Amino acid sequence: MSKLVIVGTVAFDAIETPFGKTDKILGGAATFIALAASQFNVDSTIVSVVGGDFPQKYLDILSEKNIDISGIEIVKEGKTFFWRGLYHNDMNSRDTLATELNVLADFKPVVPENYRDSKVVMLGNLHPLIQISVIEQMNTKPELVILDTMNFWMDNALDDLHSVMQKIDVITINDEEARQLTGEYSLVVAARKIHEMGPKYVVIKKGEHGALLFHDENIFYAPALPLEEVFDPTGAGDTFAGGFAGYLASTDDFSFENMKNAVIYGSNLASFCVEKFGTERLLNTTNGEVWGRLKEFKSLTQFEIVLQDS
Amino acid sequence: MSKLVIVGTVAFDAIETPFGKTDKILGGAATFIALAASQFNVDSTIVSVVGGDFPQKYLDILSEKNIDISGIEIVKEGKTFFWRGLYHNDMNSRDTLATELNVLADFKPVVPENYRDSKVVMLGNLHPLIQISVIEQMNTKPELVILDTMNFWMDNALDDLHSVMQKIDVITINDEEARQLTGEYSLVVAARKIHEMGPKYVVIKKGEHGALLFHDENIFYAPALPLEEVFDPTGAGDTFAGGFAGYLASTDDFSFENMKNAVIYGSNLASFCVEKFGTERLLNTTNGEVWGRLKEFKSLTQFEIVLQDS
Repeated sequence: MSKLVIVGTVAFDAIETPFGKTDKILGGAATFIALAASQFNVDSTIVSVVGGDFPQKYLDILSEKNIDISGIEIVKEGKTFFWRGLYHNDMNSRDTLATELNVLADFKPVVPENYRDSKVVMLGNLHPLIQISVIEQMNTKPELVILDTMNFWMDNALDDLHSVMQKIDVITINDEEARQLTGEYSLVVAARKIHEMGPKYVVIKKGEHGALLFHDENIFYAPALPLEEVFDPTGAGDTFAGGFAGYLASTDDFSFENMKNAVIYGSNLASFCVEKFGTERLLNTTNGEVWGRLKEFKSLTQFEIVLQDS
Repeated sequence: MSKLVIVGTVAFDAIETPFGKTDKILGGAATFIALAASQFNVDSTIVSVVGGDFPQKYLDILSEKNIDISGIEIVKEGKTFFWRGLYHNDMNSRDTLATELNVLADFKPVVPENYRDSKVVMLGNLHPLIQISVIEQMNTKPELVILDTMNFWMDNALDDLHSVMQKIDVITINDEEARQLTGEYSLVVAARKIHEMGPKYVVIKKGEHGALLFHDENIFYAPALPLEEVFDPTGAGDTFAGGFAGYLASTDDFSFENMKNAVIYGSNLASFCVEKFGTERLLNTTNGEVWGRLKEFKSLTQFEIVLQDS
């Protein structure tokens, strides 16, 4: 069991989908990552910032999942990062209606002293310089640094993104972003180019089409669980990353073989995330349910053709 | 080992992709289906029609793969069905530049007498009434009838399509067509509705995102093999269906468990099809290569989390 540092947003989200809409609810990349990782009872801390408007009850929700919140700075006179989004009928495209950075604009992450020896660091989607600052605060070199990022930083901070990519072990990125970053349509070729930019392991997230894990010439594929209904995709990618990081931290095994299991667990937890608004379903997911879905992943993917040596 | 009847087009294709273009080359649904099925050494026949312009060397290519061509009618004074298509840069969308039905316009399929007791019938994409005519010519009820179709028949012959769907066991259909046929976005819900229209087994093809096999509440997923380059997608769906049908005919086992293997073999052979123009790669695929790719499918999808009974 390794300790896990998670940096990312803790935020308010307001979401509208074809199924309904919410007022400001608990959201943010670090929130989804930490809740997913908490499924594995890892000792994790969130490094983030919120405003004086952030309700104590949301902090309590995180604490009750045994997530350390001492690294969440509270700026009393400030307002919490806020995102408002609208999903279209196919749930695969969304419009961002509002993004208010608020306290995030001046965020200087501080990793709690007692987590500076953590073996695993999960860098949620933020400015690459903030992500680098977290790596630099570690007293011992982490054994596994996982980076999530997005196209916004490719457009606005590409050099910094390349800098942080040279300091990490695993990148998680979606398919369109992998294509943008490399100029390659084939994900096999794109993964190879991203590998050359730094990360030894490349995870390409394809939403409802699953995720691919690349390491040298090896590829593993985790499907998304086919669902009757996707209610709200918000946080699914972060939940995937959190399940991936949490499983690896809990097993203390950072091999490619174990990463296969980790992407299956990531996809497993993401399948819960999308069933309700925001964090609602993730907060009420039991081990038994996760276990049951693992059986579904097995029957979904395992086949019996016996391989002969020929 | 069961005999296999294949009905569908035998045609000329002219293809343009970002990688190059061809003159009229050997194409057609039944061609790809039969070449894929021939990988399993099944005793198969093609029921189709060509014109007097169809070269003997193309017929010889089929015969050399031990495909019976006595059911391919040659209309000496007629011209062979012709399709010209242009693929765009992402290879996922294409424009049909020309479709000349020619001899196909008056096609009356005749199943060779010695194949009317075949256990497996593969109905390639054609007018539903032609597909029904083939079923009705069988002397004994086939144990497995597989139907492929497309959106054109949903737009132009929906009642006939519903009729043939009630006479078959397995349908293969792509994701957009499944959504069009049912009005449902979720493929899980769409598959259930298609199941209610007749077929006990529903295979939804998702191109580069693989294929889903549905039976009652059971789902199996075969990924597409991640490729560095897709050279020409023409015929990939038919090759998938032919691999599926050929494997089932060769093993004489029409259970859901064996259909899992069949969709893996279908996806396996489709991965070869797209590597060259038309049938070129499929014609030169060795058993050793197929076997090697089967190993890739295993390492791509198989994971080691041990399931406990809990």
